[in-house]
Amino acid sequence: MLCLTLPTDPRWADVALADLPALLTDHAHCEMKAASNALSLAARWPSIPRLARALVDLAEEELRHFRALLDVIEQRGLALGKPETDVYASELRKAASSTCARNAKAALIDRLLVGALIEARSCERFRLLADGLAARAHELAPLYEELFASEARHYRTLVDLAVEVAGDEVATRGRLAELARAEGEIAGRLGTAPAVHG
Amino acid sequence: MLCLTLPTDPRWADVALADLPALLTDHAHCEMKAASNALSLAARWPSIPRLARALVDLAEEELRHFRALLDVIEQRGLALGKPETDVYASELRKAASSTCARNAKAALIDRLLVGALIEARSCERFRLLADGLAARAHELAPLYEELFASEARHYRTLVDLAVEVAGDEVATRGRLAELARAEGEIAGRLGTAPAVHG
Repeated sequence: MLCLTLPTDPRWADVALADLPALLTDHAHCEMKAASNALSLAARWPSIPRLARALVDLAEEELRHFRALLDVIEQRGLALGKPETDVYASELRKAASSTCARNAKAALIDRLLVGALIEARSCERFRLLADGLAARAHELAPLYEELFASEARHYRTLVDLAVEVAGDEVATRGRLAELARAEGEIAGRLGTAPAVHG
Repeated sequence: MLCLTLPTDPRWADVALADLPALLTDHAHCEMKAASNALSLAARWPSIPRLARALVDLAEEELRHFRALLDVIEQRGLALGKPETDVYASELRKAASSTCARNAKAALIDRLLVGALIEARSCERFRLLADGLAARAHELAPLYEELFASEARHYRTLVDLAVEVAGDEVATRGRLAELARAEGEIAGRLGTAPAVHG
């Protein structure tokens, strides 16, 4: 799916759905981190107006998702709690920075592509969750169906922005493929936990 | 106005209105910084649901303002450019941290109160701008009228949240008064520039 090099083990959805409280709280934290990350990029690169605008739109959509998940969490009498350390995202950023040319533009392109890969993995897993929830006739199936579509859009937006900033589609797709291999290796190593990227 | 200890020199509005491009771009950066700051607090304190929700609402409103200003900036053929170093906000944070008890809850309360003071100063200055623009029958007068009201609301929200987190209204109002004295000293020292807090 999308650019991912390693599909998620289909058993992951069963593990995740067996501990819905853990999944929902981890997921809410993911939406908040994605919004915060998009905004910090927009704040650092306001000199590219289309980038700033697209990242602000993206942050706003992530915030709407965060609020939707907070509603679900509170309706179920759960507490959001503090976020766990995000090993997946930090390893992916480390993999990017260890192979990235050290200049500001290359770093921006990598941050966009790393963001795109995180969205791609979320998208793939929300598809598994939407199917698993639908098979159980669960009330949250439509929410995950909607979030699946939204993550796919975010993936495309972030890749398009990286291509635009780079001004070189072939080189950017090449770098995306390189980072996707690192992402597949990290996702494969992390095993299956009731977490969006666990 | 609100809790401010030193009113802005009324000549500031003339200086600011004489260089509208500088004011508008500085202002857009301020809205983005306010959104980013609210979100980073929400992400760090998700365990207080009402706080997270209120800060997300606030961030969304700041993003709408950012977008409105970006529209104005682009319609005028201006470029947003990189933000200047924010001496006002960094000095205010330094003043807070140098007099704050070193624990996480006190630091959160201070961040909320510092945010409230920044909103209060913006609110005071948007009033001056709205009046100055109205006197010139300028098309941007209604925007600053609206933003004035919104900053006043944000000020109240942030003070209310600080009181709620502290669980002690008298102590929180006392700390706000202490920080407001530091803010007045900083604002007075910075002089008058075509910038929201310059």
